[in-house]
Amino acid sequence: MDEFESIRRYWLPLGEPPCDGLVRGIGDDCSELSIPPGQNLLQSIDTLVSGTHFPADIHPVDLGWRAMAVSASDLAACGAKPWNVLLALTLPTPDQSWLAGFARGLGESSRLYGLPVVGGDTTRGPLTITLQVQGLCPPGQSLTRSGARPGDLICVSGTLGDAGEALRWLGSPGSSAAAVSAVCQRFLRPTPRLSLGMALRQKATACIDVSDGLLADLGHILAASQVGANLDLAALPLSQPLKTLAGTRALELGLTAGDDYELCFTWPERAGNPDQLCRDGIPISVIGVIESQPGVRFSNPPDGWEAPKNLGYQHFTA
Amino acid sequence: MDEFESIRRYWLPLGEPPCDGLVRGIGDDCSELSIPPGQNLLQSIDTLVSGTHFPADIHPVDLGWRAMAVSASDLAACGAKPWNVLLALTLPTPDQSWLAGFARGLGESSRLYGLPVVGGDTTRGPLTITLQVQGLCPPGQSLTRSGARPGDLICVSGTLGDAGEALRWLGSPGSSAAAVSAVCQRFLRPTPRLSLGMALRQKATACIDVSDGLLADLGHILAASQVGANLDLAALPLSQPLKTLAGTRALELGLTAGDDYELCFTWPERAGNPDQLCRDGIPISVIGVIESQPGVRFSNPPDGWEAPKNLGYQHFTA
Repeated sequence: MDEFESIRRYWLPLGEPPCDGLVRGIGDDCSELSIPPGQNLLQSIDTLVSGTHFPADIHPVDLGWRAMAVSASDLAACGAKPWNVLLALTLPTPDQSWLAGFARGLGESSRLYGLPVVGGDTTRGPLTITLQVQGLCPPGQSLTRSGARPGDLICVSGTLGDAGEALRWLGSPGSSAAAVSAVCQRFLRPTPRLSLGMALRQKATACIDVSDGLLADLGHILAASQVGANLDLAALPLSQPLKTLAGTRALELGLTAGDDYELCFTWPERAGNPDQLCRDGIPISVIGVIESQPGVRFSNPPDGWEAPKNLGYQHFTA
Repeated sequence: MDEFESIRRYWLPLGEPPCDGLVRGIGDDCSELSIPPGQNLLQSIDTLVSGTHFPADIHPVDLGWRAMAVSASDLAACGAKPWNVLLALTLPTPDQSWLAGFARGLGESSRLYGLPVVGGDTTRGPLTITLQVQGLCPPGQSLTRSGARPGDLICVSGTLGDAGEALRWLGSPGSSAAAVSAVCQRFLRPTPRLSLGMALRQKATACIDVSDGLLADLGHILAASQVGANLDLAALPLSQPLKTLAGTRALELGLTAGDDYELCFTWPERAGNPDQLCRDGIPISVIGVIESQPGVRFSNPPDGWEAPKNLGYQHFTA
């Protein structure tokens, strides 16, 4: 099967249903889109490398699903409404059953999150997936990392650390216990908090998605906003499966493990009670407060606790 | 140096001068752009893999330069005006001198072609470069592959086959002869025909850039337009350096070698003489005519010539 037959079989269905404003999708040198009126374009490009960002033996359906969800999470962090995606897939051999599984997972999450594939490139090489995701937001309403002010509450959605614990269990024989299955799902099928991100427009002062670990990602907000934070360790949302599996390691995972794709945002007092943001049963936890003094301080540590030296996933430390 | 220091040092300067409508560039979860009024968005994503799309020992300055030019060529093929680009770079080690060279080459071509980098991702893994390029074109004016009609002239810009011949010489000791240098430049520093592409708007009936080889790429026009072609082999534009180096292989390289990034387009009689498109000393050659009968026929073959069995670079034949 040549590239063009692959495109027809696997990629064309990923463009359905088409996004608003699509003039021409997959199959020409460029795709062409007419941007809906009154909207700015928000976009992000993300690469997942086999062995670095996912275990080499991950099931292709899970991989496709996860790749789309991870990219969509960048739109959630900016409060953007999903619009479309372009896919650049590099793979060692054109394995038809792998391609079919990958396309199935990608297609399921594509339709779930409203991100049809409008263009792409398929190349031969080490397994690498790059998605360029595009969203829409009215001018002046998108969320950034730079608006946190002293006194703002620090909030996170859902629970933290689950996906980090999953890395210990993925692919393990006998990993069918309910708690293991629960944390593995958090890694394999993360949920981008898209509706929460849109609800935060014009209310939250800063926002980021927790991909590298809470301390690392909150650190980006603090640096961009030139502020500090006091975190209440007793308020960190840790799931029961995580506590069951990780015991005393759960707190550190919640602070430093990435891949959960929850949103961490800062919320000014004038915006009211952040509980208003709860939807679909996803809790919102107030985990601290922004302070003017740079750096992070910790309240309510467990007995004998020491602040972690490793602040989270480092992309590229030389 | 961590990812954020790399971003500051190497990637931020690639965003200057910024593109029209840039609200927020590199450094947040998404970049944000306001699309200029009266324009559609044209975009393409392309991956270059070490050892597949370029020799592993290519100089990083050349690689950066080439990656940008190759991506820009997709905009030329659609008649789009360059707007901006996003970069996903996967590399095995954060080698500072390599990064500095790559960023220099990318920056030079970025400024030359008006494609500032507005976002990106840097990951660790096998060397792979993905660029998502964006351009602008008024609605209804972009070029596609599907409009060729019987009687249209088939035209190409510049000369074909040079970059294919270069693959024999790149990295060879003693490759300083003028003809070798000339063909290697065509591979290392291809020129996307951006001004030609824009000049073809509302005139050419179909267009593609020659990346996989003339017969393969013209084949995409023929398939999309449901027509055939008669090619005049005596009219194929072959450079003197190519003829000097390749001798009797020159014609086959001109028909099947890719990587020259010239434009191949179809031109209706009503649009006048295609010589009007010559600019910057780049010739336009009429190399054939579109016919209603599917398939490709050849006129004026050299004595003893046989049509090539290999129609050009096949991306992914299984």
